[in-house]
Amino acid sequence: MSTVPESLQGKTIAVLGGTGPQGRGLARRFALAGLSVVLGSRTAEKGEAAASELVAGLGDAAGAVSGSDNAGAAAAGDVVLVVVPWDGHKELLESLREQLAGKVVVDCVNPLGFDKQGPYALEVEEGSATEQAQAVLPDSTVVGAFHNVSAVLLEDPEVASVDTDVLVLGDEREATDLVQDLAGTIPGVRGVYAGRRRNAHQVEALTANLIAINRRYKSHAGVRVTDV
Amino acid sequence: MSTVPESLQGKTIAVLGGTGPQGRGLARRFALAGLSVVLGSRTAEKGEAAASELVAGLGDAAGAVSGSDNAGAAAAGDVVLVVVPWDGHKELLESLREQLAGKVVVDCVNPLGFDKQGPYALEVEEGSATEQAQAVLPDSTVVGAFHNVSAVLLEDPEVASVDTDVLVLGDEREATDLVQDLAGTIPGVRGVYAGRRRNAHQVEALTANLIAINRRYKSHAGVRVTDV
Repeated sequence: MSTVPESLQGKTIAVLGGTGPQGRGLARRFALAGLSVVLGSRTAEKGEAAASELVAGLGDAAGAVSGSDNAGAAAAGDVVLVVVPWDGHKELLESLREQLAGKVVVDCVNPLGFDKQGPYALEVEEGSATEQAQAVLPDSTVVGAFHNVSAVLLEDPEVASVDTDVLVLGDEREATDLVQDLAGTIPGVRGVYAGRRRNAHQVEALTANLIAINRRYKSHAGVRVTDV
Repeated sequence: MSTVPESLQGKTIAVLGGTGPQGRGLARRFALAGLSVVLGSRTAEKGEAAASELVAGLGDAAGAVSGSDNAGAAAAGDVVLVVVPWDGHKELLESLREQLAGKVVVDCVNPLGFDKQGPYALEVEEGSATEQAQAVLPDSTVVGAFHNVSAVLLEDPEVASVDTDVLVLGDEREATDLVQDLAGTIPGVRGVYAGRRRNAHQVEALTANLIAINRRYKSHAGVRVTDV
């Protein structure tokens, strides 16, 4: 049974970096919700291979899943998620300016470093990955979201409900509403508006805390906003 | 009935900036849990007045509450919470180095700015208020905590249970364990270890997001960590 809300009906969701655990996990959940998904990767072959692998694990009710290179996925998507490593984030988006123009681009990237003491937030010249994306893509509407969702839970077929909120950051109401709807297609997940792009940094950086929490508590921690 | 855990028995909790809503609210909950609390303020008169006002609203089971200036409170406390405005944070702590030496200092301060577009995180030279406190107080053990707890809920006598987690940040296990225990004295609250001091910035800054959430949803938002 499709759980696709009206705002997303007929729309294709592209996932750039769709072959990493986070991208694969999100693509899987969107497809399970009945959405059409295009996985983007560095090469079309890799994107297609990831799509074939993903499709094999889904039932008949799932939306169509295909693979492409990142440029092809960016062109095919109505809503385009960016789930690539921080290293190379800016260059990739610069190369896709045309394909992403006029679209809602959802930046899911966490600029983090790791050393002997564990994870920490990197400084970003533009303030955050989300703000960097908007600076590089002036003709797109950039929303920050899906920073704190455990890839392990998203990918686990035994996990029916992913018990977490997705904090959605952006300056354009129509776009943040759409991304909240998108988050809500994942069972157990709720999209919560959490401020403007200029307040994205701390939500990206909070992933360092969640990793520290996971190490201490052997958990797959997420965040719920209370009283909302 | 006292809910004071063993680690905090016989200990006095000082709250610097105990006359603002957040400080008053925390002091109120700690006293209700049976802890001895000293409210610090800019002058002893203000501290004493705030203590008298607070005591009037508490039952017989509450811990002792007294007031002082910030220096007196810092000297009296075994655990000292810093709940002062960001403006003046560094100068106050510099002036209390002696009183705070050898103690656990809990920094609760959120360096935030506000403009027409709402709240935003300020840049802090040391990285965060918590790291600034540790830099200024080399002979104290600084823990960051209580950044995201609604003062409105803490102060409301109708609110029996404050439905939120307190993210506790620090590099010394004994101190973070103690502050987790302290958080747990507030009904409904759970102290969760959330990383080292160098990951405090984003937890402080997250308060800007919670304020944005409160404006959108007319809520008193807090944060729960899932799967812990």
